[in-house]
Amino acid sequence: MLVEIAQELGEVVVVAPDSPQSGMGHAITLNTPLRIHRTRAFPDLEAYECSGTPVDCVKLAKHVVTKDRKVDLCVSGINHGSNAAINIIYSGTLSAAMEASLEGIPSIGFSLLDYRYDADFTACRDHVKVIMEHVLEHGLAKGSLLNVNIPKLPKEEIKGIKLCRQADARWQETFAEATDPRGQKYYWLTGSFVNDDPNTDTDVAALEEGYISVVPSHHDLTNYEALEHGSLRSLEEAEVAS
Amino acid sequence: MLVEIAQELGEVVVVAPDSPQSGMGHAITLNTPLRIHRTRAFPDLEAYECSGTPVDCVKLAKHVVTKDRKVDLCVSGINHGSNAAINIIYSGTLSAAMEASLEGIPSIGFSLLDYRYDADFTACRDHVKVIMEHVLEHGLAKGSLLNVNIPKLPKEEIKGIKLCRQADARWQETFAEATDPRGQKYYWLTGSFVNDDPNTDTDVAALEEGYISVVPSHHDLTNYEALEHGSLRSLEEAEVAS
Repeated sequence: MLVEIAQELGEVVVVAPDSPQSGMGHAITLNTPLRIHRTRAFPDLEAYECSGTPVDCVKLAKHVVTKDRKVDLCVSGINHGSNAAINIIYSGTLSAAMEASLEGIPSIGFSLLDYRYDADFTACRDHVKVIMEHVLEHGLAKGSLLNVNIPKLPKEEIKGIKLCRQADARWQETFAEATDPRGQKYYWLTGSFVNDDPNTDTDVAALEEGYISVVPSHHDLTNYEALEHGSLRSLEEAEVAS
Repeated sequence: MLVEIAQELGEVVVVAPDSPQSGMGHAITLNTPLRIHRTRAFPDLEAYECSGTPVDCVKLAKHVVTKDRKVDLCVSGINHGSNAAINIIYSGTLSAAMEASLEGIPSIGFSLLDYRYDADFTACRDHVKVIMEHVLEHGLAKGSLLNVNIPKLPKEEIKGIKLCRQADARWQETFAEATDPRGQKYYWLTGSFVNDDPNTDTDVAALEEGYISVVPSHHDLTNYEALEHGSLRSLEEAEVAS
């Protein structure tokens, strides 16, 4: 769907992982080499599959595939399942978009709140195109990317697009514990999403109301409030044994 | 070194990956089960090795190993090599600390600017202890962690501890291109660190001056400046074909 829409807006090059990368976060491949091959998945396009992580794909796209070309926009996704709130941290889709923003390329990560293999990506088609056109036309602040999440709704029930901040929500983790055929114990991560953030200006709230959420995001993790207030300043005067 | 110092401050439980995890970022293991075993690396301690990523280790530590115990502090590292500036995004060490902060556990990621296998971790011993004691005594703001980087200097040349923000530095990537014994081309990520941030209130600047840098960090990636200013607001009024 994303390739289809992008083709209506310009020349498209695809670089994508050759295997599922759920929960890959901002991982990069340092200890093994990377492979990249033309793929027949998009016979009419310049399209590659890559052995690495989503972030590796962006690095290869920028520094090998499009080395001497100017890239106007990087789009990543459309992910099966929400990348709202804290999910941005775990998401390969959004980490790929962030990597492009680090390279100075305006970028957008798209996710649909539907985990099903046959999820319907057509309902959001026009909204996705509008967001891509907006970024192509206006650009984004330096180092910024957009985290776009789309509610699982028919097109006529999508209320519109809402700019918002990342909700302070979290995962309540549990581990399924079981025994393998050789009698060895193993653990498998599971959990449920908990929104502790009661405010209405968040991505989670916008999605619950039926809006497409757009969170301008960046890579500066500094907690400026904790930097300027609080007890940390006294650390600079701490006595250290000599 | 970190275990040794922590043992002077309280009861210590170790949960660590069973293999190198460089560049693992905030990756989690979703598609395969996890294994966790007691390790003999620390014969006098409750210590485990885990098959997953650094973030998996923290999740297992919290929800399996210390399930019914209160954890006062999570420390991660000491990493070989800098996690200042943008490195926090790629770092398994810091992602582990961030995961603990998401669980409400005050946490610190430590890194030494020395990649050598036999790097000298003793020079920073007293400073590391002071920082751990400070966090144990004062706690951290909700959802905060500390990103601590230590210059590669003898103890007497370390000028002290400096609170700072994350520098807006980046990696200038290149890929080594080569051919494997079977005649297939491969790529291997390499690159050099570039600091474009001329200001002196950053972690990179503090380290260059000979200070230990401490950046209070968090998981809110919202770019509030881009949210409140700029052209994004017009997205909410965008016309979508019906």
